Amino acid sequence: MISVTLIGAGNVAQHLFKVFNQSDSIVVNQWYNRNTASIIYFQNEVEIIDDISKLTPCDIIIIAISDDAIKEISENIDLNNQLVVHTSGSVSIHHLDKKHRRGVFYPLQTFSKDVDMNFNNVPFCIETLEKDDLNHLKSLADKIGSPYYKINTDQRQTLHLAAVFVNNFTNQLYRIGHEISDVENINFDILKPLILETAKKVQSISPYMAQTGPAKRYDKKTIKRHLKQLENQTHKDIYELLTQSIKKTHGR
Amino acid sequence: MISVTLIGAGNVAQHLFKVFNQSDSIVVNQWYNRNTASIIYFQNEVEIIDDISKLTPCDIIIIAISDDAIKEISENIDLNNQLVVHTSGSVSIHHLDKKHRRGVFYPLQTFSKDVDMNFNNVPFCIETLEKDDLNHLKSLADKIGSPYYKINTDQRQTLHLAAVFVNNFTNQLYRIGHEISDVENINFDILKPLILETAKKVQSISPYMAQTGPAKRYDKKTIKRHLKQLENQTHKDIYELLTQSIKKTHGR
Repeated sequence: MISVTLIGAGNVAQHLFKVFNQSDSIVVNQWYNRNTASIIYFQNEVEIIDDISKLTPCDIIIIAISDDAIKEISENIDLNNQLVVHTSGSVSIHHLDKKHRRGVFYPLQTFSKDVDMNFNNVPFCIETLEKDDLNHLKSLADKIGSPYYKINTDQRQTLHLAAVFVNNFTNQLYRIGHEISDVENINFDILKPLILETAKKVQSISPYMAQTGPAKRYDKKTIKRHLKQLENQTHKDIYELLTQSIKKTHGR
Repeated sequence: MISVTLIGAGNVAQHLFKVFNQSDSIVVNQWYNRNTASIIYFQNEVEIIDDISKLTPCDIIIIAISDDAIKEISENIDLNNQLVVHTSGSVSIHHLDKKHRRGVFYPLQTFSKDVDMNFNNVPFCIETLEKDDLNHLKSLADKIGSPYYKINTDQRQTLHLAAVFVNNFTNQLYRIGHEISDVENINFDILKPLILETAKKVQSISPYMAQTGPAKRYDKKTIKRHLKQLENQTHKDIYELLTQSIKKTHGR
């Protein structure tokens, strides 16, 4: 049995609570937030607290709050020899207060508010200062069925950056696809299977191998026509820059 | 029963042959290619020809060849009152020879050479000059379980452009994610569940609603650090341009 305490009431904290609560071998002792309104609903299942001095020792305290607040809250945890981890992709392990055994338990995934997440699809990047503590985090990931990778702070910050490309920027390309098709009164649904298949493809082959299209073929005629079709200058700029990038990758 | 003849031996033609051949209510009469080497394997299942004058009438002749060759091959089909369609995203219906009943049967999907495609996930954009012929194409899509949309040439060319954004350009962002993580010796597998989830999210909510991340939050500190982390100038440019684009979309 692993005992866990959660700090924070946002998206990640809520998803972690749910999956921990479902496990027979994890117990959530306490759940702290400055404002308990959004989690008070769970008071029959866990001790909800808004006074940080009431924290009691457990195997792992997980801080799942905004990056800027991690340092201060870790300072305010008044426990001895406690393993304290945060869940941020970009904050150094050394931002946690020195008095703690420190670690990171970063889920590399995008969580939606009201959509249940299958934690088999949530890889955790784990890091600790003490080797023994690594086993606690491995075991926690195991118990919720999540893959895990030992990742240091530099690597984690790189992954966080890579995630911006494959998640936020990709989503913006979907948005542009939506905008472009809206102008011609085309149902965006038509593009959805292609979006999914594009993501599925790189689960088994590399993005390099998966590439197709006019930029890779160096099909000047189509590229020229596409640029003429685009009316929005930002869309044009993105088209040109990504076409350039594909050409470079594929040796043109 | 619908009788079909295929022209071309590429990816799309091969996938269409397989799915047609599996259907009890579609018969592939003939399969033409200038060079039959890559399709001769199927000679027990369909008449393979390399002489276009041997084409016989059927319900639908499907031209699945490169854009530039469509016009000429349609001129060389010497049949009367024959429904002839092409499968291209960018070629006008009027590029087909006037003597034919003309149409378009464009699958908006990315096909991999050796990976079977579930045609439930292949939406067809269909267009004909005669209303009656539309029913033939609808019926053909129905029989292979594919959704279809009535899409005119302008709309189809717009979709083809949108597809470049959500497929080719998105795939290049995956590639950049791969490059960035490779530098730090990070296993690209860690990013794969995020890639899939990002695509899944927009199946049910709009890309606008699905957006998250530093650009949307206008998190200057993170954006600045990310730009500092990036060493490749093209990656930097893409980061800046897509960050700008997200800010515009979300009213910053």
